[in-house]
Amino acid sequence: MAAVLAERELDALVVTELTNVRYLTGFTGTNGVCVVSVDERLFFTDFRYTERAESEVEGFERAPAARELLADVVKRVSGRVGFEDAHLSVRTHARLEKLVADADGDAELVAAGSLVEGLREVKDETELAAMRAAAELADGIYEHIRGSGLLGRTELEVATDLERVMRERGTEPAFPPIVAAAANGALPHATPADEQISADTLVVVDLGCLLDGYCSDATRTFATGEPSGRAREVYDLVATAQRTALDVVRAGTTGKQADSVARELIDAAGEGERFGHALGHGVGMEVHEGPVLAQRNEDELVAGNVVTVEPGVYVPGEFGVRIEDLVAVTEGGHEILSHFPKGLVTLD
Amino acid sequence: MAAVLAERELDALVVTELTNVRYLTGFTGTNGVCVVSVDERLFFTDFRYTERAESEVEGFERAPAARELLADVVKRVSGRVGFEDAHLSVRTHARLEKLVADADGDAELVAAGSLVEGLREVKDETELAAMRAAAELADGIYEHIRGSGLLGRTELEVATDLERVMRERGTEPAFPPIVAAAANGALPHATPADEQISADTLVVVDLGCLLDGYCSDATRTFATGEPSGRAREVYDLVATAQRTALDVVRAGTTGKQADSVARELIDAAGEGERFGHALGHGVGMEVHEGPVLAQRNEDELVAGNVVTVEPGVYVPGEFGVRIEDLVAVTEGGHEILSHFPKGLVTLD
Repeated sequence: MAAVLAERELDALVVTELTNVRYLTGFTGTNGVCVVSVDERLFFTDFRYTERAESEVEGFERAPAARELLADVVKRVSGRVGFEDAHLSVRTHARLEKLVADADGDAELVAAGSLVEGLREVKDETELAAMRAAAELADGIYEHIRGSGLLGRTELEVATDLERVMRERGTEPAFPPIVAAAANGALPHATPADEQISADTLVVVDLGCLLDGYCSDATRTFATGEPSGRAREVYDLVATAQRTALDVVRAGTTGKQADSVARELIDAAGEGERFGHALGHGVGMEVHEGPVLAQRNEDELVAGNVVTVEPGVYVPGEFGVRIEDLVAVTEGGHEILSHFPKGLVTLD
Repeated sequence: MAAVLAERELDALVVTELTNVRYLTGFTGTNGVCVVSVDERLFFTDFRYTERAESEVEGFERAPAARELLADVVKRVSGRVGFEDAHLSVRTHARLEKLVADADGDAELVAAGSLVEGLREVKDETELAAMRAAAELADGIYEHIRGSGLLGRTELEVATDLERVMRERGTEPAFPPIVAAAANGALPHATPADEQISADTLVVVDLGCLLDGYCSDATRTFATGEPSGRAREVYDLVATAQRTALDVVRAGTTGKQADSVARELIDAAGEGERFGHALGHGVGMEVHEGPVLAQRNEDELVAGNVVTVEPGVYVPGEFGVRIEDLVAVTEGGHEILSHFPKGLVTLD
């Protein structure tokens, strides 16, 4: 963190975005701000959360504050003070500017970009352990699906059941699970419908578990009965693209390169237009974070990144296929965190 | 909406906050922007949500857009263009300013405050019906607690069970339910602990249901066995304060007046310092919205507001009491939407 401040020539960074606050301090309440400077680490919350902060926040001086927090924060900063411009609202920024002006000190507010998000992209061993556990829970949910079947139930029934099982097992959904059969599977962001899952089709199931503040994310596409030849062909294509893209995931590969590997393969099969999203995205305390595996990302992956690898082909009005693993990037390659089989599994 | 634009001398309002977008358009996806001007109503989303928008969005021209949306939005606005400064980040605002400058038109961005939130504070009959239904579901969850008991279970077991029952009944928690026994009840924002609920104490249960985009919010404090005389006295005090404050809830009463009625009664009993929060808050598509029943709100309530009335007294290290109803404000009085009994209910 000190290096990041130096690089941006900041004397302090005011962190207001709550996931970033949790990442740095451990605080899980809904009103907290932290300040990191070269020689101080301060944490601010109001009376409602003082007990929680005492048990959760370590390595930060706990500064008592009135509920609005920022007035007390301003009293403790000086010099070039970074703020999180991707999160702070125009209105709150205006208030902060006024507090700084009224304080009559030498503080100057500077848009600091997404410094903490940058740190969050590289997971340490503790974080990787949390993500392995979250991914293993997701594997278990897929096993549950294999045991309980899909045919004749509604998408909504299946989705509700998955959430129930997650909670029974001490986790919760990292996002509302997607269960999308037949033509619904061609909608990349389908919500589970109150419609029976029919025979002889494909069913996209996309789910993740949230555990100790960390998310997992995985997708499998199941079959019911005998899907069409076309559906099987597309499944094989996506599975090949997924495996081939996985092969290049290692430190030093760019997000663009990884995306291209899958995209060129799907393009060559004439389905390029039906792969309308990026290959993958970073996962951590949020389901979507950096780095992205997309044409727009020319940065190299580094060890400790955790990303999804999830090509998909969506045939409007017919079906969709998406296969997604959660993957930790290592120096020489990668560790796949999702372990449910990727061959086409047929369920009654 | 036209009147609101005229009052602020705006030619158009760009609505980016997703709950506000849903309120105006019905859209439930996660990437949508709407523009309301004197003679146009435009809705923008990207390809992932076009099918959803077709089924959900009515009364708006659906404008196709690239995923970033704002570049396409800027092409369709001119004159004084309001933006939601309480929500738009400093970074997105800077991008919007640049798009407007590059467009070379006559558009000028103006901080518009919380215009849509203002509209949302006054519920129409359809919204009130949704909130009645959400409140009735919460009543049913309290009945479930009465049937299943509290003593000897852990707070966490009870909370998990409540969430399960909500989902079985087709609703979901509007916020994580609070189940806080004995000294935990004195923490206004306690999270359910993995601790057995003991005998002869009080248990605060605060929960709400989310249904069709609308929330309910209610709190009851239960007894196990024989709580102390002091606990019973405080219960009676809070119950009296709650009832007395309810009596003044009607169009024309200010938020401050309602808060004062409860606060003066609790002050007079010597417990004023232990009532550390406002009397209540508005509820609607969000659990916390306007208007607040607090000393800082000198605005008059109007018919269609829906607020909580929830005095509480928290005795550190011993117990807490909070009693909360959800209440719709009417011209001549109010309609209480929470129907579970407010006398002290003792559960095994």
